Amino acid sequence: MYTVANYLLDKISKLGVKKIFGVPGDFNLEFLDFILKNDKLDWVGSVNELNAAYCADGYARVNGVGVVVTTYGVGELSAINGIAGSYSEDIPIIHIVGVPPTFLVNSNKVVHHTLGNYKFDEFKKIYENVTCHQVWIDFINPIDQINSAIQSCIIYKKPIYIMLPTDVMKMEIGPINRDIYFPTIYDFESVNNVTNDLYNKIKNSKQAVIIAGNKITSYRLKKYFNRFVNNAKISVVNTMYGKSSFDESNDFFAGIYIGKNTADKQLQEFVDNADLIISVGNKFTDLSSSNFQLGFNKEKMFIIDDKCVCYDGKQIDNILLNSVVKKLSNMEFNYDGINYKAKNILSKSVDPKDKITYDDFYSILNSTISNDDIVVSDMGTCSFAAQYLNLKENTEFIMQPFICVNWF
Amino acid sequence: MYTVANYLLDKISKLGVKKIFGVPGDFNLEFLDFILKNDKLDWVGSVNELNAAYCADGYARVNGVGVVVTTYGVGELSAINGIAGSYSEDIPIIHIVGVPPTFLVNSNKVVHHTLGNYKFDEFKKIYENVTCHQVWIDFINPIDQINSAIQSCIIYKKPIYIMLPTDVMKMEIGPINRDIYFPTIYDFESVNNVTNDLYNKIKNSKQAVIIAGNKITSYRLKKYFNRFVNNAKISVVNTMYGKSSFDESNDFFAGIYIGKNTADKQLQEFVDNADLIISVGNKFTDLSSSNFQLGFNKEKMFIIDDKCVCYDGKQIDNILLNSVVKKLSNMEFNYDGINYKAKNILSKSVDPKDKITYDDFYSILNSTISNDDIVVSDMGTCSFAAQYLNLKENTEFIMQPFICVNWF
Repeated sequence: MYTVANYLLDKISKLGVKKIFGVPGDFNLEFLDFILKNDKLDWVGSVNELNAAYCADGYARVNGVGVVVTTYGVGELSAINGIAGSYSEDIPIIHIVGVPPTFLVNSNKVVHHTLGNYKFDEFKKIYENVTCHQVWIDFINPIDQINSAIQSCIIYKKPIYIMLPTDVMKMEIGPINRDIYFPTIYDFESVNNVTNDLYNKIKNSKQAVIIAGNKITSYRLKKYFNRFVNNAKISVVNTMYGKSSFDESNDFFAGIYIGKNTADKQLQEFVDNADLIISVGNKFTDLSSSNFQLGFNKEKMFIIDDKCVCYDGKQIDNILLNSVVKKLSNMEFNYDGINYKAKNILSKSVDPKDKITYDDFYSILNSTISNDDIVVSDMGTCSFAAQYLNLKENTEFIMQPFICVNWF
Repeated sequence: MYTVANYLLDKISKLGVKKIFGVPGDFNLEFLDFILKNDKLDWVGSVNELNAAYCADGYARVNGVGVVVTTYGVGELSAINGIAGSYSEDIPIIHIVGVPPTFLVNSNKVVHHTLGNYKFDEFKKIYENVTCHQVWIDFINPIDQINSAIQSCIIYKKPIYIMLPTDVMKMEIGPINRDIYFPTIYDFESVNNVTNDLYNKIKNSKQAVIIAGNKITSYRLKKYFNRFVNNAKISVVNTMYGKSSFDESNDFFAGIYIGKNTADKQLQEFVDNADLIISVGNKFTDLSSSNFQLGFNKEKMFIIDDKCVCYDGKQIDNILLNSVVKKLSNMEFNYDGINYKAKNILSKSVDPKDKITYDDFYSILNSTISNDDIVVSDMGTCSFAAQYLNLKENTEFIMQPFICVNWF
């Protein structure tokens, strides 16, 4: 027997997901049985839904998509801070909520895990604010509903919210496989135009710098971006939020730039005096810009964002980060300007006999980082030091700008 | 200097509140200084906002109103499960959220603790679903805004949501005191009619029973309700949710009724065969009714709810629980039917040498309860046993039907 639950799990598996996080609850228990029976998926239980949401967030940052399963009402509300964080940083999460069976929802009765007001769509309304797509799976059209939701998750790189009733889930739908359609934006001409313009700007620049943003990671473009940098031979700065978007062991890595309070003052001067600032998938927040105190000339920026490109006072819409970065990765460039090589900020030598200071701590920590590590940092005070850790080859750095103190 | 923050705190203090719960965060730090400087209010810090919300919930159940203070975005989202629980059980909570200063909100910049989308009202939209009143305090009309919000909290016995910007909070407003207006509903005639009808029904009844609901507690009517029962001389059952709404040491206490699965089968029979069921401020949920398996005849019900009274197939609106119960507490009745006296369900004698069973555990626990205790129970499996604990005089029983597993 092949059911709606089987279909949903097969689609998730096809995205490359291998682990599903969550917490059992009254209205998802039977769905968890379907997960356990699926050979390609592992269930990873958490002690509470907030942890599970953060697990899914971390999993998505490393593997592309994360999945979290909670129960209705109380379960999903416990997860909301994690989901909101993923939303704020463009992390694609599939949040599946086990909801009461259809007959109970239609019964006009007060059911536990509800707000006691005979309404069942309050939590969906709450989640409209922190997910890009919400759907209550029904008996009529479950396949299309599932495909459409997952499509949004992958296209927009944001969390989606799937309400899965205990009865609809078990509906037999026969062996069925309908591919999820990912619409192509025909942006070839625009891509050619903007990349040609960028080519010319790079050619004429005497001091260019690239800012690597977090969307390079969420759109899975690190490999292409790296190739672009190696071809262009231009210095790259990471920011607090996109720290591992560019490989910090690369020779073109110039350091961490956060505007006025940048630790390496020579780097700050280098960026602020650049005649071309190429921003790729980046968004400055108060914390990553020393409270919006950026020293460079914004008119010199060439901004490549996820759905538009902006430069010379114009904005070209309907052009994807994906298309632009892939195109750039296959181009050759003629950059003839100067570059800047990153300094090691956290390199204080520590005498084991002395008291350990804050600086010492991060210098010691810094010396322990190896290739292929995953460094997870809380936000807040520690993030201001942790952003300067020297990442090695293939090291992932995970932090959430939403700054939830419950991160750990 | 007397500011908006001072005014808000004075109004809270005037409600009889002595303790404020919460967690410090970037956008409420300065407000906390105002709390510390207020002689009549104590600040009680929690390790996370969910705990603080539950503290405020418990405080409100015992003292009438609870106050919780969180920071913007991440702070308030951590509290939402507790607030939703208070909402589901008619507990008046004042939730104060410290929000970014007005100039920053108007700046169109990406600020930490937001969703990174230049919007600042997303969390308010989320809280619209779990509070009865939401207000963003502004420079124009802070006094009216505060009064109106607190008015809603007290009238509707639900959580309210006050957004307090760091700059508005510090605005000087001079020494000002404007009383909060609690509009009176002129329901005297309706109250006389329905209480006369109830008087006659009681007079003609041969087997009456009263169901005491949780709203007796949230509307602070226990004293009046108790007086009504002593005058009427009719047996009272408590439910899982309104367990301490009626004093279980009272001679008229008949036990806990939950429909089909009621532990005391004679009590179940007594209720199911009653010719008059007076329901006061009660709402049956799946868990308090053995999944809606109630054996009594619903046509025999006389329902006194918070804003209406229903009997004989009619519904009289705009009549308050408050008015009806107070009126009943001053009446004499002529009940001539039979009553039922509560049995002690958890009275197993335990041999200290034997292994402790589930039954033993609750019987031992039961024997430890004294006058004036506050018994707090988690929901879920344990609540099905805990509901039968024998409360002594002036014992409070606190449990949340929303069933959040994070209760503790």
